[in-house]
Amino acid sequence: MNDVIALLQSHRSIRKFKPDAVPDPLIEQIVRCGQAAASSSNIQAATVIRVRDAGKRRRLAELAGGQSYVADAGAFLVFCADLHRPGLAVTRLGGAFDGGMTEQFIIATVDVALAAQNCAVAAEALGLGICYIGGLRNNPQDVCELLELPDLVYPVFGFCLGYPDQVPELKPRLPLPVVLMEDRYQDAPEAAIAGYDAQMRDYYRSRTGGQKSSSWSEELKVLAGKSRPHMRAFLARRGFKLD
Amino acid sequence: MNDVIALLQSHRSIRKFKPDAVPDPLIEQIVRCGQAAASSSNIQAATVIRVRDAGKRRRLAELAGGQSYVADAGAFLVFCADLHRPGLAVTRLGGAFDGGMTEQFIIATVDVALAAQNCAVAAEALGLGICYIGGLRNNPQDVCELLELPDLVYPVFGFCLGYPDQVPELKPRLPLPVVLMEDRYQDAPEAAIAGYDAQMRDYYRSRTGGQKSSSWSEELKVLAGKSRPHMRAFLARRGFKLD
Repeated sequence: MNDVIALLQSHRSIRKFKPDAVPDPLIEQIVRCGQAAASSSNIQAATVIRVRDAGKRRRLAELAGGQSYVADAGAFLVFCADLHRPGLAVTRLGGAFDGGMTEQFIIATVDVALAAQNCAVAAEALGLGICYIGGLRNNPQDVCELLELPDLVYPVFGFCLGYPDQVPELKPRLPLPVVLMEDRYQDAPEAAIAGYDAQMRDYYRSRTGGQKSSSWSEELKVLAGKSRPHMRAFLARRGFKLD
Repeated sequence: MNDVIALLQSHRSIRKFKPDAVPDPLIEQIVRCGQAAASSSNIQAATVIRVRDAGKRRRLAELAGGQSYVADAGAFLVFCADLHRPGLAVTRLGGAFDGGMTEQFIIATVDVALAAQNCAVAAEALGLGICYIGGLRNNPQDVCELLELPDLVYPVFGFCLGYPDQVPELKPRLPLPVVLMEDRYQDAPEAAIAGYDAQMRDYYRSRTGGQKSSSWSEELKVLAGKSRPHMRAFLARRGFKLD
């Protein structure tokens, strides 16, 4: 089973795909693998919408900030956190289900991510490449309307899927001791972060032919500013009150 | 690579483990696989605390609602969503990082779940069994204190890891067409849910020797009531304001 370890450690996000479509049975097999992931109290809050309609694909590509591979990849899936389905089941039995608790939001969001990562592993095992599209949260209300999502369902991310037409360099990760701790939290030594910063500079330089050479810390600085300030109000509008 | 598909589809949560410890190199290999999962803007918000101290293990078992396998499994990991580390990196460069946005909370929580699911797959590929422990969110403030977590770090879930001493029945999942939709959201036919409800009744009956025979919908009714109402205030206290 060391093949599996090698598979997991060779993940890279794919943003350039061959034009070939992904056959339906493969997509079904991949989503079944997603369903096999653990689910909190078996709530199964992950709903996957496969977008086949070319017009909707183009619109989603725009909404995600102009990511052309959202329209072009062999297949495109939208992973939704779905508290509408369990709510309906409870209501049918005469019970009440609000779905507005922060805890329920966490449960649903984690359920989706576990399922999606199983799909990613399955896809890569089948020779496909994938790319998560967090950019769907740029305009989540528009995504909801386009896909006719009911209240208590939100698009957590999109997922491009297809036959890779590139082999990007592996992105270096933080040194293991920075993220794996024992018995209590400990800040990493500054030198460990500085070393990784230097490594990321080299990575970006090599990948962009010298055009980009920022460190991990510098990239985070950019990220700290653009944190989709509409999300809280968007979620409340869809029933996720985060009480 | 169909071995991988079979591996993914044979997941069951393991709650009874052989007494053997999990060797350190295996844990390191597993966490490296977690690091290889996609990370939103490469923020790498997943921090893993391996709890080796027996007293802390017993305390965590209590805090999780008396789940003895938290103390007994070959290893126990706590997966934390960590915005403290990126915040520190940004601050060192003279930038400002608040970490209180709902979007940042989603990014960090999803990052952790993707990493953890890769760890789950890696562990199972190596012959180990795992069980997610959402019960750490029963008393998250106590978990923070026990593990000395700084602000902007919260325990998303625990993760038991060890050599399985049981082979539980596979838990049936919702029929694929209920969770995989095309181009737009559609409610499942009531008959599909009713069929699954019947299947889950049989599953629980068979698994408990007739002691439990509730349907999926009935189990959800229970779940709808116990949704950890402290989570919102707990998160705010730790800096996750969910703005």
